[in-house]
Amino acid sequence: MQLTLHADYAFRVLIYLGSHPDRPVVSTEEISRSYGISRHHLVRVVQTLSDHGYVKLSPGRLGGVSLACVTHSIRLGDVLRHVEPNLRIVECFDIKTNTCPIISVCGLKSVLGEALDAFVKTLDQYTLDDLLHRRKRTALAKLFAANS
Amino acid sequence: MQLTLHADYAFRVLIYLGSHPDRPVVSTEEISRSYGISRHHLVRVVQTLSDHGYVKLSPGRLGGVSLACVTHSIRLGDVLRHVEPNLRIVECFDIKTNTCPIISVCGLKSVLGEALDAFVKTLDQYTLDDLLHRRKRTALAKLFAANS
Repeated sequence: MQLTLHADYAFRVLIYLGSHPDRPVVSTEEISRSYGISRHHLVRVVQTLSDHGYVKLSPGRLGGVSLACVTHSIRLGDVLRHVEPNLRIVECFDIKTNTCPIISVCGLKSVLGEALDAFVKTLDQYTLDDLLHRRKRTALAKLFAANS
Repeated sequence: MQLTLHADYAFRVLIYLGSHPDRPVVSTEEISRSYGISRHHLVRVVQTLSDHGYVKLSPGRLGGVSLACVTHSIRLGDVLRHVEPNLRIVECFDIKTNTCPIISVCGLKSVLGEALDAFVKTLDQYTLDDLLHRRKRTALAKLFAANS
């Protein structure tokens, strides 16, 4: 049980942008280089974040990406709901593709659904700001500078 | 974010065995046929369940698999902890293979760890017996009989 890279990278982008509040825009190339991850994949992640209003995209040579909202308004549970393309814990969560023959009487789906709900609601208790309180923000900015 | 097939199938094996309390042993072939899933994979799942004391294996032509404990003693959270080979929600959960450079100061890991804990603790509130109360057990047995 693991988040997709799409969701993992979405959190990383938000953390990167939140660690650089003084920068008007940051390029996806800079973010991908800092984390050592695929820029190609990151571009798609940034597009998803933009589609859901978490970031703004500025075109052009000096363009890039910036946070579209204040960090304390970005709830981590909401981010997960928007950017994780697969929250089907087991195949019967998608009745269109399900092949398990006992779906109509099985009690496991509702129990796993309750567990997934507890997972996401835990994340709802935190915002991006909680990941970036003053000391963490400074330490993150230093680490990113060392990797750039 | 999805359970591995190994964990998914482990729950299915327990549900199958719990739905047939009158049968001393059941063959893996019968279980795989009922669910329409790979017997090869199921044999490995059954071995994992045996390693953790959930089922007993009986060798020989008339052998098979049976529950090793009463259904109300099998907590679903424990099953998940034992049979899910990957509870690393993001790569930094495994510091041996982690490549993310901000692991030392990132706050996301602990928040995701808390969410994972909430997920598993929700499952801890249920036992195999909860998935098999009288009406469900009967309906499941009928469905399995129709698929055999």
